[in-house]
Amino acid sequence: MTAGFVRGLDLHLDVGEGRGRGRALEAALREAVRSGRLAPGARLPGSRSLAVDLGLSRGTVVQVFGQLVAEGWLVGVAGSGTVVGPVSAGSPLPEPEGRPAPTVSGPGIDLRPGRPDLSAFPRTPWARAVRRALAGSAASLDYVEPAGLPVLRAAVAEHVGRTRGVRASPDAVVVTAGFTQALALLARVAQRLGMRQAGVEDPGFARHREVLGAGGLNPVPLPVDDAGADPGALPDEPALTLLTPAHQHPYGVVLAPARRAATVEWARRCDGFVVEDDYDGEFRYDRQPVGAMQPLDPERIVFAGSVSKTLAPGMRLGWLVVPRALRAPLEAEMTAFGAGVPAVDQLALADLLSRGEYDRHVRRMRLVYRARRQELGARLAAIGAPPPAGVAAGLHALLPLTSAEEERQTVKAAQRAGVRLHGLHTGHYWHRPAPDRPGALVIGYATPAGHAWRGALDALTELLR
Amino acid sequence: MTAGFVRGLDLHLDVGEGRGRGRALEAALREAVRSGRLAPGARLPGSRSLAVDLGLSRGTVVQVFGQLVAEGWLVGVAGSGTVVGPVSAGSPLPEPEGRPAPTVSGPGIDLRPGRPDLSAFPRTPWARAVRRALAGSAASLDYVEPAGLPVLRAAVAEHVGRTRGVRASPDAVVVTAGFTQALALLARVAQRLGMRQAGVEDPGFARHREVLGAGGLNPVPLPVDDAGADPGALPDEPALTLLTPAHQHPYGVVLAPARRAATVEWARRCDGFVVEDDYDGEFRYDRQPVGAMQPLDPERIVFAGSVSKTLAPGMRLGWLVVPRALRAPLEAEMTAFGAGVPAVDQLALADLLSRGEYDRHVRRMRLVYRARRQELGARLAAIGAPPPAGVAAGLHALLPLTSAEEERQTVKAAQRAGVRLHGLHTGHYWHRPAPDRPGALVIGYATPAGHAWRGALDALTELLR
Repeated sequence: MTAGFVRGLDLHLDVGEGRGRGRALEAALREAVRSGRLAPGARLPGSRSLAVDLGLSRGTVVQVFGQLVAEGWLVGVAGSGTVVGPVSAGSPLPEPEGRPAPTVSGPGIDLRPGRPDLSAFPRTPWARAVRRALAGSAASLDYVEPAGLPVLRAAVAEHVGRTRGVRASPDAVVVTAGFTQALALLARVAQRLGMRQAGVEDPGFARHREVLGAGGLNPVPLPVDDAGADPGALPDEPALTLLTPAHQHPYGVVLAPARRAATVEWARRCDGFVVEDDYDGEFRYDRQPVGAMQPLDPERIVFAGSVSKTLAPGMRLGWLVVPRALRAPLEAEMTAFGAGVPAVDQLALADLLSRGEYDRHVRRMRLVYRARRQELGARLAAIGAPPPAGVAAGLHALLPLTSAEEERQTVKAAQRAGVRLHGLHTGHYWHRPAPDRPGALVIGYATPAGHAWRGALDALTELLR
Repeated sequence: MTAGFVRGLDLHLDVGEGRGRGRALEAALREAVRSGRLAPGARLPGSRSLAVDLGLSRGTVVQVFGQLVAEGWLVGVAGSGTVVGPVSAGSPLPEPEGRPAPTVSGPGIDLRPGRPDLSAFPRTPWARAVRRALAGSAASLDYVEPAGLPVLRAAVAEHVGRTRGVRASPDAVVVTAGFTQALALLARVAQRLGMRQAGVEDPGFARHREVLGAGGLNPVPLPVDDAGADPGALPDEPALTLLTPAHQHPYGVVLAPARRAATVEWARRCDGFVVEDDYDGEFRYDRQPVGAMQPLDPERIVFAGSVSKTLAPGMRLGWLVVPRALRAPLEAEMTAFGAGVPAVDQLALADLLSRGEYDRHVRRMRLVYRARRQELGARLAAIGAPPPAGVAAGLHALLPLTSAEEERQTVKAAQRAGVRLHGLHTGHYWHRPAPDRPGALVIGYATPAGHAWRGALDALTELLR
C-alpha cells in the first residue's frame, strides 16, 4: 500500500501498490476535487515533492497532472504551478468509470473536425436510461410513427425552446436519424414541392452539398465573410437554403442580424425555406450562445439539431422543428422511405432530457472544450501564430494560413507526423476549389480523448512552429 | 457412427450417432445435392429401405424427405417416389422474415398481424447487452460505415448461415434500419441500374408494394397459389422481385421448388434480382424451418431479415445479404441518404447474437407461438370452422371465408366487439381489390400479450361461431 499525506494540502491520498499507481493517483485527485476536499484555486505541490511523498516517479506524477489538466480538474497557471480548476463541486467524473481510458480511432493523433471526445460519452447514464426506457410500456416497442415517439417530441420541444430559444410545439418536432438523413429527406420534399436549387455556404461542409445534390437540388454557393453567408446569390424562386447561423462551418463566424433578416425576407418573398443547421449551438465559451434564427419565422425556417456533437455521431439521433407547410410532405417522404428511429433510443434520450442529465453532460463537456480552446489559443500565441478565426464556440477552430499552397504543405507534413487534420482545400470545403482561395487548417480540438489532448496540442504546435 | 451406402445411388452418407441423426441425414443429403454428388432427377431409395440402410427409424427418414422437399432439394413425383430437384449444384441452404402496417395500440383485443408479443421483449438481456456494448472501445461511437459495424456484420453472417442456411460472408452483410428502409434503398438501386418494374406477390403486403412504387418501380402482381407466387408474370427485362418464400405473407404457403428454380432462372436470364423477405423464417412449428432460397444463387438473391418479429418492430434493426453486383450501388445510395443504424444498437445486437441469447429468445418464443397456433387450430375445429391455411409457421394465420362480403361483415362485427384484425380486402393485401377475390381473415396470434391471449381467442371464436 502506497499512501501518504500531500504536504501543504493536508490531504491523504491512497494510491495502492505496484503497477497502476499512476492511475490510482489520478482517480484519487479527481475524487478529491469532485468531493470538494480540494477546493477550486487550491495550489498543488510540485510534481517533484508529490512524487517523493507518494513514492512514485516524477514522470508518473507529471503525466497524472497533464491528464487532470486536460480534463479540466486542474489548471496550469504560469508562475504558480498547478491549481485546482474552477470545476463545480459535485460534478460527476467526465471520464468513463472503472475502465482504462479508451483510445480513439486508429493510430496517431486525430484532430479531424466534427467529432466530440468520444471517450467522454456518458456511458453509465445512457445505460441507465435504456434500462428505465425498457421498464416502460411494451406498446412503445411497436412500429413507430415516422415523426417519432410523443414523449421524445415533447422533451425536444422543451429542450430546444429553453436552450436555443426555438419556438417549437411537440407536434412541430420530428425525430430524425441524424442530420444527414434529415437533410436528404428535406431535399426530396423540396424537390417534390417543385424546388430545383439549394443555397449552400461557401466554404461549407462538403457532405451536405453532396446530399442536397443527390436529393435532386442544384447547390448554389453563398460566399461567407465576417458576417456569415451572403444570401444575395439566392435564386429568385422557391428554393431551400442551408445555413449554420450560430457558428459557421468552417469559418466560425456568427450570421449577422442583417443577413438573418435578409434571408428571411428572401424566403417570404420567394416561397423558400431555410434549414438552420444548429450543429454545435450548445457550445459557446465566451458568453451565452447566440439564439437560434428560427424564431424570426418558424413557418419559413426548419431548425435542425442532433446529439452527434453532444453525445456521439454513432447515436444517429436528432430532431427537426418543422414549419407547418412542410410537415405532411415530410411525413409522406419518411413513410415512403421507412425512416424511423429505434424506439429504445428515443425513449432513452427522452429520459436523459427530462431528468436534466443531458444538460449536465453538455455543461460538463462545455468546460472541457473551453479549456482546450483556451489552451490552443495560448499555445498558438506562444509560437507567434495568428489566433483561431471566428467566435469562441463549437468543436473546431479555423487556423488561417497564407495560401492554399501553405495549407497543402502543412497537411502533408501533418500526415508525415501521424496527425490527422483537415484543411479548407483538402477537406473539400470550397464549392469550387482553386489555388487563389484562402487556405486554412480546420482543427477539431474536441476529437482527442482527454489523455491524448496534450500530445495532440504538442504535435500541432510543432507543425505550425 | 452410423453410416452406410445408399443403395442404387452408390452414395456414402455419414450421419453420426445418437440423437440428431435425422438432422445429420438431412445435412448430408442437402450437401450431396448441392455438391452434385446427387444429380438433378436422380431417384432416391424409398424411405423404408433408406431407414434400414442407415439404421434410422422410417419416421425420421420421412420427416427428412419432407423437409428437403419443402426446401426444394428434393421433389416428390407421383408414382416415382422422391427425386433430386432441379436446383443448381453449388447452392447451400437458407430462410426468411416480414412486417406490417404501422400502429397505435389502444384498448380492446389486438389480433393484427405482423407483430410479436411485445410484452415478451427480452428487456433485461437487451439492457445488459447495451451496458456491455458501452464498455467497449469509444471508437465505435464515431460515424458509422453505412454497411454497419464489422462486429455485427460478422455475427449476422454466422447467424443466418447457421439458422437459415444463407451463404453469407461478413462483407456481403449490410446492417439496415429494418426491412422497409432496406427495400426503399433497394428500389432506388434498381431504378439507378435501369430497372423499371418489381414483381410483387398478389395477395401480398401492401406497404411493400407502396414502398417499391415510391422508389420508382412499377409493381407487377404475381398470383399466389398453393405453390407460392407464380413467377410467370415477371417481365422479360431486368427487374426486381420481392418474395416471401419460407411462409408467404399472407397465404402461409411455402414457395415450391419448381417456382424457386423458375424464379432464379428468370433472374439469370433477364439480369434481374430477387429480394427474399425472410420475415418470419425463424418460426416454423411442425418441423425444421424451410431453408432460405438465397443459396440457389447468392449473386441473384438478396436475403433480408430483421429483428422486427423476433424482438420488436420498434428496434428498426435488420440485415441484408447482398449479391456482389449490388453492393457498391447500395452503399452509394445509403451514403447519399445518410442511412445508418445507431452504433450502440448494433453493438448490443452483436453481443446478443454472439452470446447465444438471441437464439435462446427465439427458441423460447417459438414454443409460445406454437402453443398458441395449436390452440387456435383446436378452437377452430371445435366450432367446425376450416383450419388455418398454409403451413404451421410464422406469427399469423389465414382463416379463409366464403367471400369478400363475408370478410367485410366479419371485420365489421369484430370492430363492434372491440377486436382489431385484418382481412385480405380490408388489409389491402390484394393488388387490385375486387368483390370476386377470395375473402379471409389474417389473424396475428402472436400480437396479444400472454395474459391477453386466452381472452383474444375467446373473442375470435365468438365472432366465427
